[in-house]
Amino acid sequence: MALVVQKFGGTSVGSLDRIKNVARRIAARREEGHSVVTIVSAMAGETDRLLGLARELSGRPKSREQDVLVSSGEQVSAALLCIALNEIGVPAVSMMGHQARIETNSVHTKARIARVDGERIDKALAEGHAVVVAGFQGVDAEGNITTLGRGGSDTSAVAIAAAIEADVCEIYTDVDGVYTADPNVCPSARKVEKISYEEMLELASLGAKVLQIRSVELAMKYAVKIHVRSSFTSEEGTMVTGEDESLESVVVAGVTSDRKTAKVTLREVPDQPGVVARIFEPLAEANISVDMIIQNVSRDGLTDLTFTVTRDDVARAREVTGELAVAIGATGGVTVDDDVVKVSIVGLGMRSHAGVAAKMFRLLADDGINIEAISTSEIKTSCLIRAKYEELAVRVLHDGFELGH
Amino acid sequence: MALVVQKFGGTSVGSLDRIKNVARRIAARREEGHSVVTIVSAMAGETDRLLGLARELSGRPKSREQDVLVSSGEQVSAALLCIALNEIGVPAVSMMGHQARIETNSVHTKARIARVDGERIDKALAEGHAVVVAGFQGVDAEGNITTLGRGGSDTSAVAIAAAIEADVCEIYTDVDGVYTADPNVCPSARKVEKISYEEMLELASLGAKVLQIRSVELAMKYAVKIHVRSSFTSEEGTMVTGEDESLESVVVAGVTSDRKTAKVTLREVPDQPGVVARIFEPLAEANISVDMIIQNVSRDGLTDLTFTVTRDDVARAREVTGELAVAIGATGGVTVDDDVVKVSIVGLGMRSHAGVAAKMFRLLADDGINIEAISTSEIKTSCLIRAKYEELAVRVLHDGFELGH
Repeated sequence: MALVVQKFGGTSVGSLDRIKNVARRIAARREEGHSVVTIVSAMAGETDRLLGLARELSGRPKSREQDVLVSSGEQVSAALLCIALNEIGVPAVSMMGHQARIETNSVHTKARIARVDGERIDKALAEGHAVVVAGFQGVDAEGNITTLGRGGSDTSAVAIAAAIEADVCEIYTDVDGVYTADPNVCPSARKVEKISYEEMLELASLGAKVLQIRSVELAMKYAVKIHVRSSFTSEEGTMVTGEDESLESVVVAGVTSDRKTAKVTLREVPDQPGVVARIFEPLAEANISVDMIIQNVSRDGLTDLTFTVTRDDVARAREVTGELAVAIGATGGVTVDDDVVKVSIVGLGMRSHAGVAAKMFRLLADDGINIEAISTSEIKTSCLIRAKYEELAVRVLHDGFELGH
Repeated sequence: MALVVQKFGGTSVGSLDRIKNVARRIAARREEGHSVVTIVSAMAGETDRLLGLARELSGRPKSREQDVLVSSGEQVSAALLCIALNEIGVPAVSMMGHQARIETNSVHTKARIARVDGERIDKALAEGHAVVVAGFQGVDAEGNITTLGRGGSDTSAVAIAAAIEADVCEIYTDVDGVYTADPNVCPSARKVEKISYEEMLELASLGAKVLQIRSVELAMKYAVKIHVRSSFTSEEGTMVTGEDESLESVVVAGVTSDRKTAKVTLREVPDQPGVVARIFEPLAEANISVDMIIQNVSRDGLTDLTFTVTRDDVARAREVTGELAVAIGATGGVTVDDDVVKVSIVGLGMRSHAGVAAKMFRLLADDGINIEAISTSEIKTSCLIRAKYEELAVRVLHDGFELGH
C-alpha cells in the first residue's frame, strides 16, 4: 500500500472523455490499495484562451489579476475530475491552492513554492478520499492567488509529494518516458529505465520538454522519486531518482539538441581590462541569460566576442549589444546568427570517465560537422553547430556512444 | 464622499466591451470622490456552460464540486474587470470569497451568508484601490468553496454593503428600476422612485425579477439602502429603503402577475379532523411550497381541497397528491390546472386603508374576470384568474388604483 501522487497535464484532461479516462486510472490505482493524490493542469487550450481575453483588455495585464484569471482553469479541471470520480463511485474532494495550503512567494505569474502544509491533504486521505489538487497555483502569505509559471503543475506535484512524503510522484504525459535521444530524430533511441536528477536537469535545461526544470530541482532537494509515464498506456516509463550503482555505470545517458539558440557576435572589441564585464553586466540587467561565451585571441588590441542566447531574447540582446558596441568602441558592430543548433551529451559517468568530450568532438569531426562553440559542465558537453547538421549530429553521437537498443 | 457598493450582473459583464463599460462607470464614480466596491457575476452564459460540462460527466454532480466548478465563472469576470480598470489607470484588486472572507454555512449550491469580515476590503479601499469581489461565492468554516444559488450576487453585494457600512448598494441590471407594473403589459406603468423593503419583498416573491428575495431580506435586516438602476444609462433608478413618510401616503405601490403557478385540486376528500394536516405534511416533506389554499364547504361529509404551487413543483405535487388521494380515500382523485395566473396588488398603505381588497375584487368583476382563489397578506392581495385575462387584469388594476403617469 503506497502513497501515490499523480500529475496529469492539460492534454490528459483536454476533454470530458479524457477526464473520465483519468478518473478510471485513479480508481484502478485505489483498487490496488494505494492512496492517491492527483494534481491536474487546466484543460488543454484553456490557459491560452484566458490569457487571450486578458490581452484583449490590456497590453500589459497586471500580474496579480492575471494569476486570478488563469488559475480558474485548474479549478475547473479539478472540479470536473472529482465529479467524474464520484460518478464511478470514488469519493473525491478537490482542493485549490488556498485549501491545500500551497504557500508561495509573491512573484505573480512565476511564484516559487515556499511551503506546502500537507495536513489537510493527509486528513482527506485518511477519510478515504481521492484528493484532486489544482496544479500551477498557490497563495502567498497574504492569501493572494499566485501561479507558478508554465509547466508549474509538475512543480506542484513534486512539492505536494514532498510534503506528504509520497512514495512516488507519477508525472503522466504524452510521451512514455525519457529517451536517449528524440525518437523522431534518432530511430534507435531507447527509453531509459532510470535516470538521475542531475542528468534529468541537464536534459530538461537542454530542451527535452518532458519535465519542468524546477520540479526536478525540487525532487532532488527532497528526494522525491519521479516516475515519468504515458497517460495513454499502462506501461512503466522512466524513474528519475537519486544516484545509485545501477546509474553509475552509464557514461552518457542521452543526447539532446536545442534549436532555440542564437549566436551574437560583437566584432573588433578593444581588448582592455574590464571590457567583458561592461558587456555582460547590461545583458544581466536586461534579464538576458547568456549561455556559451567565446573570446577570440586578440589581434592588434582588438578581439571578437561571441555568446549565445535563447531565441526569445534575441531581439533584446541585439538592442542592448548594439548600444554597447557604440559605447565601448567595438567598430565591427554586432551580428546575430540564429541558423545554429546546440547538441549536447549528458551523463553522470562523464565525471569519472576521461575523454568523453574529446570523443564527442571526434565523432562530429569525422562526419564533417564544424564546431562553432563549446560549453561544458560536470555532466554535460554541448557543441554549437550549423542548424542543418542537427539530426545528423544527434544520430552520430547516439550511435557513437552506443546508446541504442 | 460616499462608500458605494455596486453589483453588475452577468449581462452587464457579458462581453469584453461591456466589462470595459463597467470599468469606465467605476472610474467615473471614483472621480466624483467616492470609494467603490464592485461585485460581479459570471459572464452571461458561463455558469450554464460549466453546469453543462458537469452534467455531461454525471447526472447528479456532487454539490461541493459543482460549487468549485461554477464559482470559477465569477473569478474570471472579477479578474478581467480589474485588468480593464488597471488599463484605464484605476488601481484595482480582485477578491474571491475566501479573500473577502464571505463566510457561509455548508449548504452547497444554496449556501447562506453567516458573516462577512469587511476588514480586508476596508484595507484595500484605504490604500486607494477599487475593490472587485467575485459574487455568488463564499467559503464555509472549513474553507470549502460554496455558492449562494442563482441570483446570489445580489445577496453578496448587500452582505458586503452591510459589513463595510456602505452608504448605498447599487444593483445594476438591464431594467432601469422598479415599475408599478410590467411596462410590456401595461403601457402606463411608471418607474417608482422609492419603495419599501416590504413592498419589494412582496413584488420579488410575486415574480418581479429585479432583485433576489434574499438580498432584500438582508437589506431590510441591516438597513442597507438599495438603488436598482440600469447598467446602460446613468439615470436614477429606484431606491429600496426603510419606510418613511413619503412612502406611507401610497396605498398601492404596484401590480404584478405571476404565470408560474398551477392549481391542484383534490376532490371528494372525507371531511375529518386532521385530514388537512395529512395532506400538507407530505407536501412540505417533499419540499413543495404551497401558496393559496381553498377548502370548499363540506357536502355529505366530503369536501374539495384546492391549492396552488409553482409550475416547477407541479410534477412532484401531482405525484405526492395522487398517492395521498388513495391513502385518505379522496374518491374524486386529483386534477391539475396550469392555465391560471396570479395577479397581485402590493402596497404598505393597505395596512391603514380599508377596502383596498374589496376595490380590487370590484375592478376585476366589472371587467368580467372571475376570481378562482384569493390570498392576502398585510401589504398584498392576490387573486387567481384564468391565464387569458392576465394582461387585462393588470391594466384594469393599474388604472383603477391610479398608478399611471
